[in-house]
Amino acid sequence: MLDIQHTSADVGTRTIEVWAPDATTLEIDVQGSRMPLQRGHDDWWSVDVPGFIHGSRYGFLVDGCERVLPDPRSGWQPDGVHGYSAFVDHSAFAWTDQHWQARPLSSAVIYELHVGTFSPRGTFDGAIERLDHLVHLGVTHVELMPVAQFSGDWGWGYDGVDLYAPHSAYGDPDALKRLVNECHARGLAVILDVVYNHLGPSGNYLSNFAPYHTSRYATPWGDAVNFDGPRSGGVRQFFIENALMWLRDYHFDGLRVDAVHELVDNSACHFAEELTSAVRELSVELGRYLVVIAESDLNDPRLVRPQELGGYGMDAQWSDDFHHSLHAVLTGERSGYYADFGAIEQLAKALRNGYVYDGVYSEYRRRSHGRSPLGLDGHRFLGYIQNHDQIGNRAAGERISHLVNAGRVKIAATLVFTAPFIPMIFQGEEWAASSHFRYFTQHEDAELAAAVSEGRRSEFISFGWQPHDVPDPQDPETFHSSKLRWDEINDPLHSDMLEWYRKLIELRRKSASLLNGKMPAAQVNCDEEARWLTLRRGDIHVVVNFAEWAQGIPPGDLGEILLASDSRLDVQSGLVWMPKESVAILRVA
Amino acid sequence: MLDIQHTSADVGTRTIEVWAPDATTLEIDVQGSRMPLQRGHDDWWSVDVPGFIHGSRYGFLVDGCERVLPDPRSGWQPDGVHGYSAFVDHSAFAWTDQHWQARPLSSAVIYELHVGTFSPRGTFDGAIERLDHLVHLGVTHVELMPVAQFSGDWGWGYDGVDLYAPHSAYGDPDALKRLVNECHARGLAVILDVVYNHLGPSGNYLSNFAPYHTSRYATPWGDAVNFDGPRSGGVRQFFIENALMWLRDYHFDGLRVDAVHELVDNSACHFAEELTSAVRELSVELGRYLVVIAESDLNDPRLVRPQELGGYGMDAQWSDDFHHSLHAVLTGERSGYYADFGAIEQLAKALRNGYVYDGVYSEYRRRSHGRSPLGLDGHRFLGYIQNHDQIGNRAAGERISHLVNAGRVKIAATLVFTAPFIPMIFQGEEWAASSHFRYFTQHEDAELAAAVSEGRRSEFISFGWQPHDVPDPQDPETFHSSKLRWDEINDPLHSDMLEWYRKLIELRRKSASLLNGKMPAAQVNCDEEARWLTLRRGDIHVVVNFAEWAQGIPPGDLGEILLASDSRLDVQSGLVWMPKESVAILRVA
Repeated sequence: MLDIQHTSADVGTRTIEVWAPDATTLEIDVQGSRMPLQRGHDDWWSVDVPGFIHGSRYGFLVDGCERVLPDPRSGWQPDGVHGYSAFVDHSAFAWTDQHWQARPLSSAVIYELHVGTFSPRGTFDGAIERLDHLVHLGVTHVELMPVAQFSGDWGWGYDGVDLYAPHSAYGDPDALKRLVNECHARGLAVILDVVYNHLGPSGNYLSNFAPYHTSRYATPWGDAVNFDGPRSGGVRQFFIENALMWLRDYHFDGLRVDAVHELVDNSACHFAEELTSAVRELSVELGRYLVVIAESDLNDPRLVRPQELGGYGMDAQWSDDFHHSLHAVLTGERSGYYADFGAIEQLAKALRNGYVYDGVYSEYRRRSHGRSPLGLDGHRFLGYIQNHDQIGNRAAGERISHLVNAGRVKIAATLVFTAPFIPMIFQGEEWAASSHFRYFTQHEDAELAAAVSEGRRSEFISFGWQPHDVPDPQDPETFHSSKLRWDEINDPLHSDMLEWYRKLIELRRKSASLLNGKMPAAQVNCDEEARWLTLRRGDIHVVVNFAEWAQGIPPGDLGEILLASDSRLDVQSGLVWMPKESVAILRVA
Repeated sequence: MLDIQHTSADVGTRTIEVWAPDATTLEIDVQGSRMPLQRGHDDWWSVDVPGFIHGSRYGFLVDGCERVLPDPRSGWQPDGVHGYSAFVDHSAFAWTDQHWQARPLSSAVIYELHVGTFSPRGTFDGAIERLDHLVHLGVTHVELMPVAQFSGDWGWGYDGVDLYAPHSAYGDPDALKRLVNECHARGLAVILDVVYNHLGPSGNYLSNFAPYHTSRYATPWGDAVNFDGPRSGGVRQFFIENALMWLRDYHFDGLRVDAVHELVDNSACHFAEELTSAVRELSVELGRYLVVIAESDLNDPRLVRPQELGGYGMDAQWSDDFHHSLHAVLTGERSGYYADFGAIEQLAKALRNGYVYDGVYSEYRRRSHGRSPLGLDGHRFLGYIQNHDQIGNRAAGERISHLVNAGRVKIAATLVFTAPFIPMIFQGEEWAASSHFRYFTQHEDAELAAAVSEGRRSEFISFGWQPHDVPDPQDPETFHSSKLRWDEINDPLHSDMLEWYRKLIELRRKSASLLNGKMPAAQVNCDEEARWLTLRRGDIHVVVNFAEWAQGIPPGDLGEILLASDSRLDVQSGLVWMPKESVAILRVA
């Protein structure tokens, strides 16, 4: 299993280290032979291992227990989460991106993709074959869903347990480097989704080494990560150095930090702030532009405020309020968190303000939620109508294009690309892909597998679904049916949507008005009864008819029609005449 | 039991309200007769009760349960925590402080007192009799340890359960108003210690009415208060309106908020910030200067930073680092949290910086602790060598004067009053009171009482104490022996210390240099080996000899000796000649 490329002549001695503050004895098992480690400074144990090369297999035995455990910082788990670790020599890869610089986030178009379903092969190398499509589309930043090693061959990746190891079913460490290198060769920056709020339920051996977890705080996935208790310094270091590894050794251009609201840390310096500071320092060291993007359910502007103003200094955060308000208006859905949305005025508020819930009461949460983001730039928010969660957390994994007609999908896309936010799309969205994106797992542990299947089923049954309408996460077909079908892309309905996305992206790229993120950059008018909304961004006017009837809409100033979702659309006597469920973009002289 | 003063002729109808979102039925029991309440807006239930006057007894029956429960916002519990509530008419008291304004905290001298042990009677009225002593001493602000109704007649008050009711063993609501009114009449501001991080273990019926608690976070006292979960809006309102009640209806001048670090709140607006904002609004409404002081274990400058800079905007916080560094140098103690202290250089750092732990590693906490308070004014910190916790949380409740000789006590007091912080002393400190301040309780529930006694004993035995050296909290003598002995105040040793405190306070009051809180206001030099420290504050020089030997100390510039703890102290050939364990204050021309 050794990668021949890396079986170098260097059979010198390497120092292997592991942090294990509570261990009494610690041994390393290197391909069967064992050696003790010595406790050193700050409870780091170490041992010099001769002939340790890229691919050498090893593991640790803690306190005499015979089970060989993977290295907490294993860089490679060729045999999965329960197997031996394999050593990774990061010095050997032949990078060709020496002069690479990512473009600023402020002019980015982000494309979220899941390695296992993006390409037919479902691997890092498989993804490379599809990159030219993204370039042609106008994407600037690829965002990979988590790639850290998790239990089973397939899954979304949020159950990672070997956080330093690329998921072996996607390819080896070099394959991931090839993917990033090939992105950079095409002018695409690459952002990695990292999960620091919990570890997966299978293969997490961290607690054998140190207090990575605490029972003082609960998360939806059990005990929280120990960010502020005794020995939290080593725990924080573990996650921060993980972030830095991806940026330094794999040349990622930034991080998307999963569920920051579940990083419970009440110390004087929140982990998210310390992480951001560490990335900033690495940026100086590497001379590369690096970004940190938060997923957050807090509606707390502190995350993206500069540190000089008491913020955490992150670059941007996902805006679920924009998504939810747009989704609820388009679909009419009101279940779950959509109960808090549905008014066109809320969508208008999101466009003007960033948050809808900026301190106002939320029925769904049964408390007031958020605070005013006044003073923040629009580019502090990512705007989207689809992402892995908003699709995949539905019982059947429907995309927006499965829920509403093409007219409404085009409205959604238009608002995403004309809003003052950074636009993000989810793989296949650009051609209204027919494949669903479902929740799939491949847990090997029978008990866990059954619990996941049953948990999913009972959750949705409690929301009123029929059991047979809830795909089983453990069924291989649930995974396979989530793969993109690239052969459909030239079918008229799909190619028409793809063309719409290309035009929107091109229009945005060329328009200083649309690229401007200054808030409130959007002058928004709407009529709840008549069901229309207009958005003015400098010389660009967007006119939206959500209604199921045609109507004339006052755009403010009239101008040249740049894009229209419906060919019957027209400008007549001071109004834009809009067929039902249509959208137009005008330029005012 | 009705207070005759208040049996007014007004026997009109009053609307009684209570927040009970999860209740199905709710009845009020008014002196035996029952009426149903109607659910209204925001889950507030109400009923109009005729003939409801000051002192009328009542309680609630939730969901048909026969147990009559006290009002969560009961203003008076004449029969203790399990008894009926009594209605309080706040409009009747004859205040005489119409023109009262508190002096700013920046020139304050704070005196912490415990109503039950401050005066022989141990009541609000008993405390009034001793106020002139405080005025004569130079105190400007009295800080009352918590007065909310708790289980038993005596206790520290941190086990309060009826947070709107003055503890009935201290007197009725009017008695507390008399105390505040009499303070104001003497020019004394009054700060109240409020406990919002937990409720006491006996008599807490809040969960019968609403989700005041959450199991998502743990505190040292069990489940945390629900500040950020579903229905937390009503919970936050409960605590904030409690704070406002004390300030508005009892004329308190500020609050000391207990253990802010245990107010676990991960929402976008931390409860401590919302509380402070609400107090600021009341300050505008009342036209009175109101302050909010935090007790915090976080070393987080965010608490006292202005809200414009992302802070919570609180006025000041207790500085345990100053206390611990001074205490450890004076006593040589290194157990518990004193393990992190002991170097004179740490005391110097506290004087220069506010925090010793400003992001550096703490052995006791086994993690790095705090962050830099750079830019904060010294008046953002309260400085003290004694408070109820630092005395009472010792096994035997020893004051500093029980632990070290008078020379060292005078050093401590001198540094408290010459530091750039707001000085605070604990009742009796000013005369080195002989009485200890012990941990005492009077729980009626036998099981709880036994648990408290046993918990205390086993805690200290685990630290190496002998069982007979740990007073039993439930033993009445533990309480009675904690009362101040006012008759000892004229004994020479005590009157000498009292005079020292008076002089220090007078000196501080008259010195612009000492009143200046600008940081770093203190130029501090020290010699760890020679065991001395000098502190320069403008034209004032403080010279401290911690050593058990006499020595000459270079003060920087020489000057006139204003105060000396030892009459043998002298200025000779460029040095201040210091007897062992002595302190001098000099003025440089």
